[in-house]
Formats: sequence, C-alpha cells, structure tokens
Amino acid sequence: MKLKPLLSALLIGAASLSASAQTDSVTIRKIYDEALVNGQAYDNLHYLCKNIGQRLSGSTNAQKAVEWGKKLMESYGFDKVYLQEVMVPHWVRGEKEQGFIIDGKTRTPVALAALGMSVATPKEGITAEVIELHDLKELDALGADKIKGKIVFFNRPFDERFIETGAAYGTAGDQRRSGPDAASKYGAVAVIIRSLTSALDNYPHTGTTSYGTVNTPIPGAALSTVAANKLSETIKNAKGKPVKFFLKQNCQTLPDAPSFNVVGELTGTENPNQFVTVGGHLDSWDLAEGAHDDGTGVMQSVEVLRIFKAMGYKPKHSVRAVLFMNEENGGRGGKKYAELAVQNKEEHIAAIESDEGGFTPRGFSFERPSAEFLKQVNANWKSLLAPYEADMLVAGGSGSDIGPLRGSVPGVTLIGFRPDSQRYFDIHHTPNDVFENVNKRELHLGAAAMASLIYLIDQHGLKF
Amino acid sequence: MKLKPLLSALLIGAASLSASAQTDSVTIRKIYDEALVNGQAYDNLHYLCKNIGQRLSGSTNAQKAVEWGKKLMESYGFDKVYLQEVMVPHWVRGEKEQGFIIDGKTRTPVALAALGMSVATPKEGITAEVIELHDLKELDALGADKIKGKIVFFNRPFDERFIETGAAYGTAGDQRRSGPDAASKYGAVAVIIRSLTSALDNYPHTGTTSYGTVNTPIPGAALSTVAANKLSETIKNAKGKPVKFFLKQNCQTLPDAPSFNVVGELTGTENPNQFVTVGGHLDSWDLAEGAHDDGTGVMQSVEVLRIFKAMGYKPKHSVRAVLFMNEENGGRGGKKYAELAVQNKEEHIAAIESDEGGFTPRGFSFERPSAEFLKQVNANWKSLLAPYEADMLVAGGSGSDIGPLRGSVPGVTLIGFRPDSQRYFDIHHTPNDVFENVNKRELHLGAAAMASLIYLIDQHGLKF
Repeated sequence: MKLKPLLSALLIGAASLSASAQTDSVTIRKIYDEALVNGQAYDNLHYLCKNIGQRLSGSTNAQKAVEWGKKLMESYGFDKVYLQEVMVPHWVRGEKEQGFIIDGKTRTPVALAALGMSVATPKEGITAEVIELHDLKELDALGADKIKGKIVFFNRPFDERFIETGAAYGTAGDQRRSGPDAASKYGAVAVIIRSLTSALDNYPHTGTTSYGTVNTPIPGAALSTVAANKLSETIKNAKGKPVKFFLKQNCQTLPDAPSFNVVGELTGTENPNQFVTVGGHLDSWDLAEGAHDDGTGVMQSVEVLRIFKAMGYKPKHSVRAVLFMNEENGGRGGKKYAELAVQNKEEHIAAIESDEGGFTPRGFSFERPSAEFLKQVNANWKSLLAPYEADMLVAGGSGSDIGPLRGSVPGVTLIGFRPDSQRYFDIHHTPNDVFENVNKRELHLGAAAMASLIYLIDQHGLKF
Repeated sequence: MKLKPLLSALLIGAASLSASAQTDSVTIRKIYDEALVNGQAYDNLHYLCKNIGQRLSGSTNAQKAVEWGKKLMESYGFDKVYLQEVMVPHWVRGEKEQGFIIDGKTRTPVALAALGMSVATPKEGITAEVIELHDLKELDALGADKIKGKIVFFNRPFDERFIETGAAYGTAGDQRRSGPDAASKYGAVAVIIRSLTSALDNYPHTGTTSYGTVNTPIPGAALSTVAANKLSETIKNAKGKPVKFFLKQNCQTLPDAPSFNVVGELTGTENPNQFVTVGGHLDSWDLAEGAHDDGTGVMQSVEVLRIFKAMGYKPKHSVRAVLFMNEENGGRGGKKYAELAVQNKEEHIAAIESDEGGFTPRGFSFERPSAEFLKQVNANWKSLLAPYEADMLVAGGSGSDIGPLRGSVPGVTLIGFRPDSQRYFDIHHTPNDVFENVNKRELHLGAAAMASLIYLIDQHGLKF
C-alpha cells in the first residue's frame, strides 16, 4: 500500500525556519521515514544474535561476526569495506561456575558468574568465611587482620535516586572493576560482588575486573541480586557466627588472539580525508547474545550508512561505520582505530558511539563542550530533532571505543548516543541480553537519530 | 545503608533560580527520592495483577479491585476514601473464539479475539468468503453488491512513520471502532480486523467496537498480525479464487451492572473545595492482567498521594486519586465523576490522566492550551522538570476518563501524562499485558513526574 506523505512532524515551526533549516527538516523527515518503514537494523540484529550469538573477543563466534559484518556491509555496496587487524585478550569462562552459601550444615546454591578476566579458583574451589562490605574504603579500615583468608562480599546496591541508570552504574562499578585487586592487597582469597543492577532477579551480571601489577590476582565473581540479598540476610541472621561461601570457577586467560575491527565507509564527495565515525562494539560477553550490548549499536551504525545510500544522500565528508572489537575486556579495537587514524594522517571531525542499548533515543551527549558550543548546538539543531523527541543535547560522556581518539586526533568532537537508560542495567552483561528484549521501533528510531545528527554535522560542521 | 544526599540534579542552573524556584527544585528532588527509594506503586501493581488479575467492568474481579483499591488507600491514611456508584456495561467474552482460514480444503486455525462489545456469531459459527479492505471508505465504493454475505477483513497496518505510536493507533483505529458497524450497512456477515499494533506476533488485540442504532450488529474480531499477514497472503496467492473464513464466538452483553469509581483524597489546607484530580482506570480488558492498561496509571495515581503524605507535604488544594471504572467499554466512571463534580459544585483546577502505559515519562500534554499558556508553562516549569527528563510540555490530548470534565466543569485544565510510547501497542489489549512487562523504575519515575507537576500546580496554579 502506498503511503501518503506524513507532514505533521515537518510543520512544527516550519514557518519560522530558514531555507537551510527547511531543507534540513525535510531531509531528517526522509531519514526517519527510511528507518521506520524500510529499516533493516532489526533483521540484521536478529541474524547476529540468533545465527552467531555470543562473541567474546578471541572466540570463534567473534571471528564469525567479523566475517558476517564485513559481508553485510559489502552487500550494501558501501564505498569501502575493510578490516583492521588487532590483537585481543582471549579470556574463557570454562565450566559453569559454582557457588554455595554455607550456613552451618546448610549449603545453598546461588546464581553467580565469574567476572571477566578473573583468574580461576583452585580446582577444588575455595571455601572461606565471608565478610560483607559496601565500600572499597572499608578494606583499608579493616586491614589484613580482618580480611586475610576471607572471601570479601561487596554488596553496595545501585543508588536508585539517579535518574539515569548509567550514573548508578558508574558509582557502584568500583566493586566489580577494582574489588578483587583491592581485597587481594589485604590477603582476601576471593571477592564476590552484588551484580551491578537495579533489578531484583536471579541473573548474575558479569563484566571486567582489572588486576594491578602489585597484588596477587584472586578470583572474582558476581552474584545475582537475589543471591546477594540471600547471602546478606544469612550473614545478618547468623549474628556474628561465621558464614562461609564456596566458589569454584575455572576461567582462564589464553594468549592474545588476532581479531579485527570491521569498517565500512561512504567516501566524502568534497572532503574524503575528513571523517565522521559512527560505531558500536561487535564483541559481547559470553553469557547471552549481546543484543543490547552492543548488537544494537553496531547494527545502528551500519544502518546509518544504509539509510544514506537508500536515500541517495552522498555525504561531503567520509562517514564510517566501525564495528569495534574488544570493547568488553580490553578496548583494543578502539585503541587500534585511533592508532591507525594517526598513522594515516586522517582528519576526524566527529565520532559518535552507540553503546548504551538500543532503547528509545533521548538525544546525544557531547564530551567536554564549551558553554558556547553547547549553546550553539542547541540553538541550531534542537528544534530540528524535537519533533522526533531526540533533542536532549547535553554535556556528557561519549563511549570507550571512540575514547582513544581523544588527544591523539586533534579537533575531533566525541559524542555519545543517549537512549533511554531505565532498562539497560536489567539485562546488561546477563544471560538475558537477548534479541527478544529489543524493540524494533526503538532500535530504528535510534539509527534515525544518529543518521540525522551525522547529516547535520556533514552539512554544517561542528565549528561553533 | 544510609544514603548520602544526591545533589547533582539540583545543581543544574541552581545559581540562576529564584528563591521560589529553588524551593520547588528541592521539593521535586524530594518527590523523586521518595518515589525511587521507597516507591510502592510496583508492589501494589504486583498485587493488582497477580492477586486480582483481569477486571473487566461488571466482573467479580472488577468488584474485588474496587474493594482492594479502597482498602489500599485507607491503609495509607488519606483524608477521605470513598466510592462513587455507577452502572456499567457488562460484556462477557464467553468461550475461546475460533477462527480458520479456509483455502480450498485447507483449514488453518488463526489467533483471534472477539472485539469488546461485539455480538456473537450463530452457535455453529459463520463461514463466508473474505474480502480484504484497507479503509472504511472502500465499503462505499464497493457497495452491497460486493460486500453482502461476506466477511470483511480490514487489514490496514499502523503507519510506522509516526514518532508516537498513539498517532498510528489513532489513524488505524477506525477499523476496530467502526468497522463492523460500517460493513453491516452493506450486508457483511462479520468483520475481522488486523490487530492495532506495530508488533508482528501472534497476540490478538481486543478493544471496543461500537454499533450505531441503524445497522444490524454483526460480529467483530481481531486477528493477530501474524494471522492477518497469513490471511492476506492466502488471498493474494488464491489469485481471485474465493478464500473463506470461519468465525465462531459466543460473547454477549448482559444487563448493566453496579460498580464504582474509587476516590482517595488529601484535603486541601487552604482551598478544600478546589480540586486537582489524578487518575487512571481500574477496569481492564479480560485477556490478561491490565498491567500497563491501566494498572500502572491507577497505581501511579495512588502513589502521588502516598508520596505527598510520606514527605509531609500538605497540599493547599484538595488532591484526589481517582480509580475510574469502565474506561474500556463505556467510559461510565468518567461520566459519573464529572456528573458528581457538577452536582457537588466542586471547583476543578486540573485533572491529569495516566493511561498510556507505565513507561519512562517524557512529559505532559495540555488539552487545547492557548499559545501564551503553553509558553508560560514552559518558561516556568520546564527547567524544573528537565533534570528528570520529563519536561516535554506540549499541546495534546489528556485522557478519556477525565474528558467528561471538559465543558461540564468550567476552568479545568485537562492534562495527559506522556510516557514513552514505543512499546505500548506491543502489549495493549493483549494476553501479554502482564506485570512482567512493567519496569519498576519506569513506573516510579512516572509517579514522581505526576506528583511534581501536581505540586507545581498546587503551589502556583495554572492561571497563565
């Protein structure tokens, strides 16, 4: 059935728009029409999730994803499609982890998962008394006397008062990132943490932990929030009597493995050596399909270029979709991309990352903008994005894959795509990060928002 | 664990705020803290969905919901809690409906559900040739010659280009609301429609159909979108050869039954006879739990009053939470509420309805505002709601329960709560509208947004 033109979104304030803004308004409407009516990101994501699945760096599936991503972009006829080789960490989870709360003679199994990059326990597992803490600082106060030989349980929950859940993740995240290393300093034998989420359910949330070079690495694992509550309650009810925990995991870090970023490009008609990058990361954790983290981001990035091609829009500057490798446990793909940009003397105008889930777009955050820049971006573009409810243009972070461009490539503006954040940490790094939790329209609206911003940057630059 | 004060949201622009706006900013932060840290709407919704469940007007469950809603508000110690009696339509679905596509000798069963208020088929069902249409206007063009004795299949999908899905629902909805009545005029024997949704799945979406007083009522049912596609494809493949359809349903409309709106009130300290109403509807369709439609709206409305009480905020004007009865198939509760407001000579300042799902709040729409009103609302309040990302203050619809106040109660401003709309029509009126599809934080953010707006109205009025 032929669709009638849909003008409602265009008409808002159209009378007061300049000719240039009217052209922009019409083009953005076309971008949204293409994304919403003919969008392919959802079907592509289905393939990535269901026919490839989990794709942790160094795995066979990661390699399959690289090959498929390249073929996909070639099938769209982008001007250039190529790989950037990069050596990546190769961590494997091994057998399903085991954990038990040991309360006297009662052994209660709990849902947990090794933290990414964690070391294994001894083959027979570790059994030790648990001490519950809420802050890394408590380690220093307690000292080796109280910590040595114990399993430290970090149980600080998300602070629910933050409006964006990323802020709660940020402030709770030290328990996972640094907990094992910090506790090891005082002789702890393992660390278990409360999963980083607002959700109360039985999914453990994995994610990278980092060891420094000083302390002996000890195993780290995340308990589901239900399990964390159970353990905390058991400790409370024991009234000072020791509660023990059993942890067994045989994950290991293999030698670095070769892998690739996948790059697709529409070459600029006027400034081919000036780049706008849009990307997400192709690797995922191994517990599920990496649907929202970050299948949505990579499929949206490919979709931006597909939309431009389908519309016949030929960008003045080169626009690249980059499927970064190894965001989750090393960030090597991002570093390689920046390294090659420097090596090839590329000029980068802007880079946009989508790695906060494929939810309804709210807008974009600009890294370290001047007050004047932010004012001008809003003055010029907010009204163009408002009809699509993607007009929150604020100061904030961008993304860890494009981060290495900061400093190394002068003049680049780093931008984070900002979708609604409420549901992201319900599924983040869990066995529940599956295709079924992605909404087609939300995903495609995000791709359209990203394409719209890139169109505006391509037309008008970012020299505010 | 004691929470440290969270000031980030307050500090935005705080330096430029007047003393009054600073007070407002602090109070709104307290509202959000109470909702996000101690919110009870989610647990209350769990009870409503799991211990009561579906609650179509006139049903035993609807009565249970009335009694429970009253007890709940009494347990919170609101100043007044009472019922408003109202007679409601009493439609029952009867046995599970049956539908088959009959293509030559092949009978393919399909997922479908009778439209609310539909008449039954004869006991043995109806078998007739299907004619596929996309617009009610096509009926007039085809006339009785082509329609008589047939089952009309309205298969116009949502127009995906709309940004808010409510607009797509609005423009596709005539097929359900008026399709059976319109086709009956030309002698059709039944109408089946494509479910009103963007989702491609096997859930049928019920919802009210209306019969005029002229044409003979014929049965109406909604096919899942998968079933609608299957039928359309079968018709296409038949290349002009008749495709038949079998429909059997034994729903019926019983005599009107007594029921109730449930009203809770915090009585105004300065203007007790001036009211701000906040409401949703307590009744639901019978296929599931009415979680998003509209369990979330009623629980948010109760939560607004609970938040005020928990904070010790005593409104100047009376604030009422109204759990309206019979929004889905009659709107009698809304009419009764307006009728009693007139009868009791109540002065109503504003009424806010939450009936678009319990998703992340985006803002509010004001019904038929003057340009000056909208400008002033934004000038005064947008910056206060922006830190919570609920600051879209626009012209638009309100809700069908508060609608009858329009005209009958002079001076009332009608306001619709505007959550993110993308997922609503995935589950709207289906067997999938269950508690599990509601996110706790999204629900509580909505209650906080509503409480914040009501606080501002209570403090500053709406005389812009």
